[in-house]
Amino acid sequence: MYNNAGDLKTMIKYPDGRKSTWETHNTGAGRRGMTLENDINVTNTWYLDQDQAVIHKKPTPVTIVKVDYPKRSAARITEAYFKLPSTTDYNGIYKGRYLDFEAKECASRTSFPFKSIHPHQIRHLDAVLRHGAIAFLIVRFTVMNETYYVDAGTFIQYWRSADRSSIPYSWFRENGYLIPSSYVKPVDFLIIVDQLYFMNTDKGGSTPDAD
Amino acid sequence: MYNNAGDLKTMIKYPDGRKSTWETHNTGAGRRGMTLENDINVTNTWYLDQDQAVIHKKPTPVTIVKVDYPKRSAARITEAYFKLPSTTDYNGIYKGRYLDFEAKECASRTSFPFKSIHPHQIRHLDAVLRHGAIAFLIVRFTVMNETYYVDAGTFIQYWRSADRSSIPYSWFRENGYLIPSSYVKPVDFLIIVDQLYFMNTDKGGSTPDAD
Repeated sequence: MYNNAGDLKTMIKYPDGRKSTWETHNTGAGRRGMTLENDINVTNTWYLDQDQAVIHKKPTPVTIVKVDYPKRSAARITEAYFKLPSTTDYNGIYKGRYLDFEAKECASRTSFPFKSIHPHQIRHLDAVLRHGAIAFLIVRFTVMNETYYVDAGTFIQYWRSADRSSIPYSWFRENGYLIPSSYVKPVDFLIIVDQLYFMNTDKGGSTPDAD
Repeated sequence: MYNNAGDLKTMIKYPDGRKSTWETHNTGAGRRGMTLENDINVTNTWYLDQDQAVIHKKPTPVTIVKVDYPKRSAARITEAYFKLPSTTDYNGIYKGRYLDFEAKECASRTSFPFKSIHPHQIRHLDAVLRHGAIAFLIVRFTVMNETYYVDAGTFIQYWRSADRSSIPYSWFRENGYLIPSSYVKPVDFLIIVDQLYFMNTDKGGSTPDAD
């Protein structure tokens, strides 16, 4: 549920902050109180049902240590541990292209901490980009209830050159794309993908490189 | 470990057959005793290290019911269950193309039972094909220690028209491609992908359709 806790300051500033944030924002569109992961799953299910794209969340990686096989009922895992993911959470295919992304919620209203993204995941995004993927991040600032599409190349460039431990919110406003939301597609990121990769628009082309 | 038990007849014919099969065949190349999953993981790691492709096995899907958070140590899952996979186990990107496959071991020497592949997985392969994926199955006949590449489209066509519950071994010899094996690439399936999708050969083209 609580994907990205933000930094400690944020947590002190908003004790039990997530919950109250949800409640505050759960007034407009019906879906507003949902988590980002849930919203993306709803959207992907819609894309799948419409045969528009095939995109799935990968299962949470766990190391299974002990399994019981009771008679006449399902195998039961009794000891397991969470593993660090070596890739991003989502991938799939859209209009013949391999698509790959990571999604993060950010509880801070001022910046997105780099430590929310594992170095493994950065390396993975960098690798798939080299092989021709459409790769990006979806970052939601929960307080503002704004969800941004950020091209992975643009993000990695900033990550490499930055001498700070987070990305200011203003950077997302300048370099990201606000993802539109509807009831059936709460995080309609393919609209942005279409604009960047499958249309001739001012912003981007086949390899977006915002600066 | 034991991905595909084959049908009951096979299991009766070879009590504890898997183990002895391994032992019998574990004489030639050093890797022969390994499971298919392990062999594919070794191969994918090699592809990744060489920056040839980015292909990963998805984590085993589990439903997590109970988690303990002991002080000063890692969160421990104490109750969880295996979930039916809704997609295939492997996907990734190669030469700009989305690649998707399922891998199965077959303990029978005469046929591959359809029930080894879940209908979900067939539907998934069919969907990614429609969107332009390179999609296939890797089937290993453990007794013969032969590993075949089978185009997903060809497989699905047979699966739809078949009035039997399995595919005979001979069908794989005729319609599949034997996957070469080396120490560093025990299941070098990209050699077949190259022949089918990235070269002009007799067999196949950009959309292979063996018959």
